[in-house]
Formats: sequence, C-alpha cells, structure tokens
Amino acid sequence: MPEYKAPLRDIQFVLDEMLQSEQHYQSLPGCEEATPDMINAILDEGAKFAERVLAPLNQVGDQEGCQLNDGVVTTPTGFKEAYQQFVEGGWPSLPHDPQWGGQGLPESIGIILNELVGSANWSWSMYPGLSHGAMNTIEAHGTDPQKQTYLTKLISGEWTGTMCLTESHCGTDLGMLRTKAEPQADGSYKISGTKIFISAGEHDMADNIVHIVLARLPDAPQGTKGISLFIVPKFLPDTAGDVGERNSLSCGALEHKMGIHGNATCVMNFDGATGYLIGAENKGLNCMFTFMNTARIGTALQGLAHTEWGYQNSLAYARDRLQMRSLSGPAYPDKAADPIIVHPDVRRMLLTQKAFAEGGRALIYYCAQLVDKAHLADDSEAETQLAFLTPIAKAFLTETGFESANLGMQIFGGHGYISEWGMEQNVRDSRISMLYEGTTGIQALDLLGRKVLMTQGESLRSFTKVVHKFCESQADNKALTEFISPLSRLNREWGDLTMRIGMKAMQNREEVGAASVDYLMYSGYITMAYLWARMVATAQEKLDAGVGDQAFYQAKLKTARFYFERILPRTKTLEATIDSGADNLLAMDIAEFSN
Amino acid sequence: MPEYKAPLRDIQFVLDEMLQSEQHYQSLPGCEEATPDMINAILDEGAKFAERVLAPLNQVGDQEGCQLNDGVVTTPTGFKEAYQQFVEGGWPSLPHDPQWGGQGLPESIGIILNELVGSANWSWSMYPGLSHGAMNTIEAHGTDPQKQTYLTKLISGEWTGTMCLTESHCGTDLGMLRTKAEPQADGSYKISGTKIFISAGEHDMADNIVHIVLARLPDAPQGTKGISLFIVPKFLPDTAGDVGERNSLSCGALEHKMGIHGNATCVMNFDGATGYLIGAENKGLNCMFTFMNTARIGTALQGLAHTEWGYQNSLAYARDRLQMRSLSGPAYPDKAADPIIVHPDVRRMLLTQKAFAEGGRALIYYCAQLVDKAHLADDSEAETQLAFLTPIAKAFLTETGFESANLGMQIFGGHGYISEWGMEQNVRDSRISMLYEGTTGIQALDLLGRKVLMTQGESLRSFTKVVHKFCESQADNKALTEFISPLSRLNREWGDLTMRIGMKAMQNREEVGAASVDYLMYSGYITMAYLWARMVATAQEKLDAGVGDQAFYQAKLKTARFYFERILPRTKTLEATIDSGADNLLAMDIAEFSN
Repeated sequence: MPEYKAPLRDIQFVLDEMLQSEQHYQSLPGCEEATPDMINAILDEGAKFAERVLAPLNQVGDQEGCQLNDGVVTTPTGFKEAYQQFVEGGWPSLPHDPQWGGQGLPESIGIILNELVGSANWSWSMYPGLSHGAMNTIEAHGTDPQKQTYLTKLISGEWTGTMCLTESHCGTDLGMLRTKAEPQADGSYKISGTKIFISAGEHDMADNIVHIVLARLPDAPQGTKGISLFIVPKFLPDTAGDVGERNSLSCGALEHKMGIHGNATCVMNFDGATGYLIGAENKGLNCMFTFMNTARIGTALQGLAHTEWGYQNSLAYARDRLQMRSLSGPAYPDKAADPIIVHPDVRRMLLTQKAFAEGGRALIYYCAQLVDKAHLADDSEAETQLAFLTPIAKAFLTETGFESANLGMQIFGGHGYISEWGMEQNVRDSRISMLYEGTTGIQALDLLGRKVLMTQGESLRSFTKVVHKFCESQADNKALTEFISPLSRLNREWGDLTMRIGMKAMQNREEVGAASVDYLMYSGYITMAYLWARMVATAQEKLDAGVGDQAFYQAKLKTARFYFERILPRTKTLEATIDSGADNLLAMDIAEFSN
Repeated sequence: MPEYKAPLRDIQFVLDEMLQSEQHYQSLPGCEEATPDMINAILDEGAKFAERVLAPLNQVGDQEGCQLNDGVVTTPTGFKEAYQQFVEGGWPSLPHDPQWGGQGLPESIGIILNELVGSANWSWSMYPGLSHGAMNTIEAHGTDPQKQTYLTKLISGEWTGTMCLTESHCGTDLGMLRTKAEPQADGSYKISGTKIFISAGEHDMADNIVHIVLARLPDAPQGTKGISLFIVPKFLPDTAGDVGERNSLSCGALEHKMGIHGNATCVMNFDGATGYLIGAENKGLNCMFTFMNTARIGTALQGLAHTEWGYQNSLAYARDRLQMRSLSGPAYPDKAADPIIVHPDVRRMLLTQKAFAEGGRALIYYCAQLVDKAHLADDSEAETQLAFLTPIAKAFLTETGFESANLGMQIFGGHGYISEWGMEQNVRDSRISMLYEGTTGIQALDLLGRKVLMTQGESLRSFTKVVHKFCESQADNKALTEFISPLSRLNREWGDLTMRIGMKAMQNREEVGAASVDYLMYSGYITMAYLWARMVATAQEKLDAGVGDQAFYQAKLKTARFYFERILPRTKTLEATIDSGADNLLAMDIAEFSN
C-alpha cells in the first residue's frame, strides 16, 4: 500500500532558507500575519490532514471511481467526509478576501498547502481546486451582490465551483464555442449548450455547485471576442441566499478516463439554465485570463505531486526489494541478494525523480512569491517574470512529472504494472496534467510566441537578468564553480538561441510552432538549473558554517551535481533540434503521411 | 472507435525492396517454398484476420477484461471465437517443424505475421505468443515422446502453453526461485510453488494448457545453476494423448493491471502437480536462454505494434480535428478552423511516431532475417549480430513505443485521456513492454556488460562493420550524403565511446551499470539511423529510376530527414551523460536519499 509523507523539511528549506519567506511576507502589504510560526502551524496541520485523511483515500478513489445514477453523482467512499473535515478546518478560506469570509493570507500559502493536499490525493484535491478557480473569477470580476451571494458560500466551503469552458468540438480553440446565453427581461440569461470535461461538475460533497460558464450572446461577434462569462448555479439561491429552486442543468454523463477516477469529470447539459453575467459582455475570455497564471501554477503543482509520490514510494521499494548483487560484489553478503538501491541504474531513476521533485518545488515556490508580489504589491517586474515562467512551470513540470511517475513505476519492475502498489495509478493520474489547462504544445506557443517573441525578448530578459545577477554574485565562490559556470554559459546561449529563432520566424511564422515545445523544455532545464544552483548556494553556506543537518545539505549538493551532469545536458539535443528548423516538419504533404 | 489497417505497402517495401527477402529465402536450406507469392498470400490473409477479427476486439478486451470464478477464467467476448478461427486457419503451425505438424516456414515469417496480429490486438496475441514460447522450448529441448504428446497439440493450436518463471520475490533474479520439484518413482516430478505474472495461465480458449515451469530439485545447487525446466500440463494426457485427469495446479488469482486487460495474467499455484523434466537437470536456465532472443524480438514487436496503432489513429484525428489557424494564415479558409495537422508541433508528434514505426519495422525485420540465418544456416556471424541487436531491439523499441503511444494520445488533447478513443488504452497496454521479458535496465546490462564488454567489443564490431560497409558503398552517392555522413561519424564515435566506458569499467565495475541504459538508447538511435539510411538508399534508387509510387518514396526521404535532424541528435545528450560517469550516481549514501 503506497504512502505519503509530507516533505516538511524540504519545504522549510526552500521556503525559509532559500526563498527567505519571512522577509518576503513582511515586505508585502497586509501579510504581517504570515509569520514563520503561523506558516509552520498551517503546514503542520495541512501535513496531518494530507497524510492521514487524504492519502489513504487515493487508491480508494481510483478503484471505486464516481458513479452517476439518475443525475446524481456519488463520489468514492470517504471523499465526502474528507471534504467535510476540510471545510470544518477552514481550509477553503485561507487565501481569500476577509470581506467575504476569507482569512486574507497570501496566495503563496495556498499554493504550498496545495502541494500537500494534491500530492496526497490529486483527484480529491480537484474539488476544492476548481472551487478556488471559481472563487478567483468572482473575486476579480463579480459585483458585490454576486460576491455576497456566491463568494461567501464558496469561501466557507459550503458550496463548490466549476469552470465550464470546453465543448466537444473546441478545447484549445474557445473562439468556436457554441453555448448560447439569451438575455431575459429581469437581467438574467438563459444558458443553453453542452460542456464537456467539467471537473467536479456534479457530486455529493456540497449543497450547491456554482458553475462559471463561457457562452455567447445572440449578437456576439464571432470568435474569442464574442464570449461572455456567467455564473450558473446548480440551485438558484433563494432570497435568504440559501439553496432554492433547482436550475435547469444536469450532468449527462461521466467520462471514462485513464485516471483521476476519483474526480467526477462530467458532461454538463445546460437547458435554458438561469445564469448571471460576470464582468462585461463579450469580455469573458479576458476575465478568464486574469487568473490563468494561478490556475496554471496549480497544474504545475500536479507535476510535482506525482513526482513526489512516485519518489517516496519507489525509494521505499528500492531499499526493501532484494534482487541481484552489486556489480562490484555483494554489498549485503548476509542477505539473499542486495537491495536494488545499490544498482547504479536504479539510483539514476531515483535521483532523476529527486532532482525533479526538489527542483520543481523550488520553481513553484519561486513562482508563488512572484504571484504574491504581482497581486499584492503591484510589482510589474514580478508580473512579467511570472508571465514568462508560468507556461514553463506548467508544461515542464508536468512533462517531467510524467517522466518521474514512470521512473517510479519502472523501479518496481513487473510489480509496477500491478495496481495494488499504486505506481501505475500515479502514472495514469499524472498523464492528464500535460493535456488540460492548455496542452504542452499550447504552453509552448504561449511561451515562445506570445511571451517571448511578441515582447521582443523582454520577457525572457526579465528572467535571464535574475539568473545573471545571481551568477555574478557567486562568481568568486569556488565551491560553486561547477554549477555557476555551466549555468552562466547556458543563460547566455538561451538568449542567442532565442534570437536565432526570432530571425527565422521573421521569414516564416511556422518556425515558432516548429521550435516551441523543444524551446519550452530547453527553457525549463535552464530554469531548474538556476533553482538548483540557488539551492546549492544555500546549502553550501550551511555546510561552510557547519550548522544544521549536514547530511541534508550534502544531499542537496549531490543531487544538484546529478542534475547538472545527468539532466541538464538534455539542452544539447534540444538546441540541435530547435536549430534544425521547420522544413523537416513542413515538407511532408498531408497525403504522404499515410503509407 | 479506433481502427487498424495492416501497413502492407510498407511491409512489402522493407521485406522485398530493402531486405530482398526473395534472395534471403532462396539462400536458406528448406525455405524454397517461401516464395514472394506465398508470403504475400500469407500476409494478405493475416491482414484480413488482424483487421476484421482482432482489431474490433481490442477495446472489448480492455473494457471487459478477464474474469475468474471458481478457478475458471473467462476471456473477453469474442476472444475464444477469434482463437478458434486462428486455429482453423492453421496459423499456430506456420513456423514449426513439419515432423510435428508444422508448416516448416522460417521463423521470420512468423515474426512478420505477429506484427499484424499484435498491432491489431496485443492482449489477444499474447495467448498464441506464449504458446509459441512453449513450443520453441519443447522443440529445442524435449524428447521425441514429449514432442509427440505436447508439441503436436500446441502446433495444431488445440492446446496452448505458458512460461512459468517469475515468483513474487524474484523476477530478474531467477537464482532465488523456490518452486520445488520432487522426483517420483515413475520418473515424473511433483511440482510445488507459486508463480506470478503468468500470461495465459488459465483461460477458456483451448482444451488444455501446457505450463513450462522453472523449479528446483531437492539437491540442486544454489542460484541459477540449480534450476530445472518442467512440462506441467493442466490436464495430464491419457494414453491416447487426449485430455485426461486434472493436474493439481490452479489459477489462484488474476492480477489487476494497468493494461493488457484482455490477457489473463495469473497467479498459478502448483500443489504437488505432476511434471516432466525437459532437458538436463539443473540446466533449466540454459534451456530458456536458447530462445530468449526470439522471445525478446517478440516483445520488441510490441513496441512497434503500439507505435503503429497510435500513429494510424492519431493521423486520422489530426486530419479531421479542426482547431485554431495555421500561424502563417488560414490553410483552409472555408472551414471553421484548420485541421490540426497543419500545426508544426502536431507534425513533430506524427513524424516521431512515423519514424519510429517504419524504423522499428525495418529493425525487427532485419533481426528476423538474422534469426533465420542463425537457426537455419548456422551462420555464426548472424548469431553474434543477433545477440548484439536483441537487447537493443527489445528495450529501444519498447521505450520508443511508449513514447510514440503517448504522442499519439497527446495529439488528441483532452480527448486522448478519454477511453472511447482508444489512445489511452494504447499507452497503458504499451507500458508493460518495458518491464516484462527483462526490463530496460536488464536489457541494457545484457547489451553493455554481457554482449559488448565481455566480448571485448567483438559483438559491437559485428554490427559496426556492417554499418561501415554500407556507408562505404554509398560514399559516392551525393543524394545520400546528408545521411551517410552523420551515420558514418556516429558509427565511429560509438566505438570510441564504448572504449571509454570499457576503460573506466576496468577501474570500477559500477561504471557499466551507470552507463548501461543511456548506452543502450544511444546504440538504438544509431542502429535505427542505419536502417533509415538503408531505407532511403532503397527509396532513392526508385526515385532515380522513376519507378513505382514516387510519393511513397518521397515520404521515406522526408521521414528519414526528420529522423536524422530531429531524433538522432538525442545521441548528443546521451554521450554527455554516459561520459559523466558513475560518481554522480554512487556518491549519495542510502540514508541521504530521504528528505
């Protein structure tokens, strides 16, 4: 039976030692309450909830899945009760506006807490996760009465929310959506259409579900400029704000999916359902984009979650499982065979996961601080950096998350393929992360096209400057040369490579799409190298000073070395494939693809 | 609903045009009957069976799975009837000895046929696949009476077979196995123990099941040198050779697996079951190894199968699905959006699959000819090359098969995660291929340790010489320079890199394990580059001569270019990580792996 232990020591290392969260929070307006003591108390409680309540339900969720009967969705055994505990603990309200019942803590703390919740049980975490998306939308664009009616109930956790975007013929290309909104005399709208892939669209965990729905007004312009956003509750609130009349919407089917079986992924039918406009008419997509970064960091977390889960469980197995002898002679002659962790290739698989887990945590927490700065301190530099790093974090960490989940499974040999060990579930659950919230391909176009090239590289420079400054600051630190020197070189080459793509793209726009995914991965490896170099700088300080758990800091150094020597060289191949250009992709006629 | 179309044109290209199968078969003793007409007739019939009977059962198998009730296993709807048709068609007997009812065709024809059967429905193909393993074992090591009793029934298809190796505490490390064989006065043995992961261990498709079981005699030496091989039938044959008394063995459970649900993966309990020794006492593992190469080529086929399935279905989707506009402007302005095949990144994913499918086919068929030469012509050069290429084919093609299956799924976006499209099943089914029949890590140790270094590089040279000769023969072919030049360079570097590893390994044996998987993948990319260069040489000849379907040959050229420019550069990273050595893997203390 797989287990999860919240990696509190490493969280504390990244948060306090590397990112100096105390200074961070004290410098932000309204965050004075976020003292180290308070944050530690929150994380300790969150860790207990994740380890004891959520983790044991992870396999249950996979095996039972959700059931739809007569329009009613039943979630797996224990999911509802866990949600009740979550609400009683006040967790949904953590990073929300006190005016509507929130606790007013900075967004970053919510993100860190979500690591614990999501690593323990990703499917379960999606119910509050989607609510959080709905809350952010209403908080940013709703009217005060809308906030009074819906936001307070979402923040308290009594109600949950969804985001209804996708239709069967359009996911990425929302401009094609067809769901209609007919204005009514009373200022409301009648919403009609079918949405698919609606996570938490129907379930038994809360009294009401607040759907945030993208739809088109009768006279709306075509394409993305004609999309508006609506609140469409499952039950219309009565005059007291409580659950009233049932709205004309229903779950038509549950999708049969590869994984995340504990999450109810619904086909939602809106049959003239009553809805209320959020924000301005035809500005629905703009409203969505305001919190897209946060949502995508939330999905980046999924990459980390499956990496951490896979690492912890495959490490335990690698220590236990006896099979074959070390090539250099028996390491444990008294045992029937050596534990497989002695084999270099098993170590390669473990260290890859470890490097991605700890590097991914550092990247996400770094982004989380940017979120705080951008939202609370109106720091435009942070905003630019966040916009640049978001598609990287989302796509790179989910791709490496899937790779890690597979390595975790591979360490189990044939047993990894058997459900009871939980490793194949981890692979299946992780696979969705590269698809939803914008596929890897879409993130890559966002990064290279929209973020980098459309700003003439400004957005890239907002980050390479940071890397450059850090390298400069460590220039005389001999102990770090093995890390700073390649990082500094790659940081320059990143700019050069971008320039080469930009030049080619001026001749042929297709060069952007041809380079995009490899460029994103290339960027991800360098970004993570920066974070590993920072972690190692922090660890080296402690080693030099001889304070703290020296083995922990030594392990950081060794993992960093592994990352720089065994993972970072992937940039070599990516540079070559990017430079190979678009011709090798475009030359084939559509007919020639068939044999 | 996913579909499968047998790629007969490409099979014919590889078999006849590139590998000149007519000359091949005519040069082998006893293969005179394998004329092009006969082979084409076999493949045409095989294609129909695969497309019409097996492919439609692929999703059925996944959804229904196998059921165990009171020791009886029921296979998915249609599986039994398909097997009946298979037997009536005489398919099981194709590559077996006419003395025992076989048709005496060379092994390579069986392998090619298995591509069709396995691509259409891998889970189903495992039932005859395991039988084939049992037949080979008895054919090579059984006595004539054993052949008369068991082999004839297996060849006719009336009975099926299994291979019972793994126990829960040992898969890779068979030396640890505990199943016991007690000699009886009548010359038989009583077999007791529990085997796991037994594919086709129990089912309703045939009258009897012939288990080939590894077990240990009471006085056997420890480890791999004390393992013997037994025939243990489900029903003991009566004096007439028909199904008689039930043997004391049973299926204790079916494994719950990630995929290949249509295959009955059984826990088999042997409770003093009657068994008969095959070959000499304590030589069981040697007997197994005699046909290990063929079995592993069979699993390499699985990589090709999932690549082909994924490619065909994602290509169809990419042509149909309308989403977004081409970056350089609408390609189909009359449609609501462009088909996603216009996007360079979708083409990258399609071409990766296409390059691996066609390159994988070429590699497997190349190996299949080596099998023929080694087995039928006692060609020791072919034997050495086959021993070298087998772990590469098995591990490299299953790794790239999984990558391809994932790319096929990725092209579907969120729909790829939904079961009805069949793409996520393809990913799940393919995942086992890197684990069973020796994990990727085990194949890599076999390649670098056992095959390459233990022969002082002789085994590597048996293949690089072939590559070198081919490059020499094309040295003046200007049209091929873009392929021959990098291939020739890499072919030299392969030897240099191997030498460097060998030198380091003399100091520290762990260097072998540290380099092994990256070395195997590096070898795979070069091996496939050789086959792509050969395909392109063949295609170029036809283009120069202006004969045949020019678009087909043009596509070969373009796919080869894609392979050389976008896939082959992966060797750069692999060379760097191999050269980074073992220290970065060994430095971490076991305790330090935990946070």
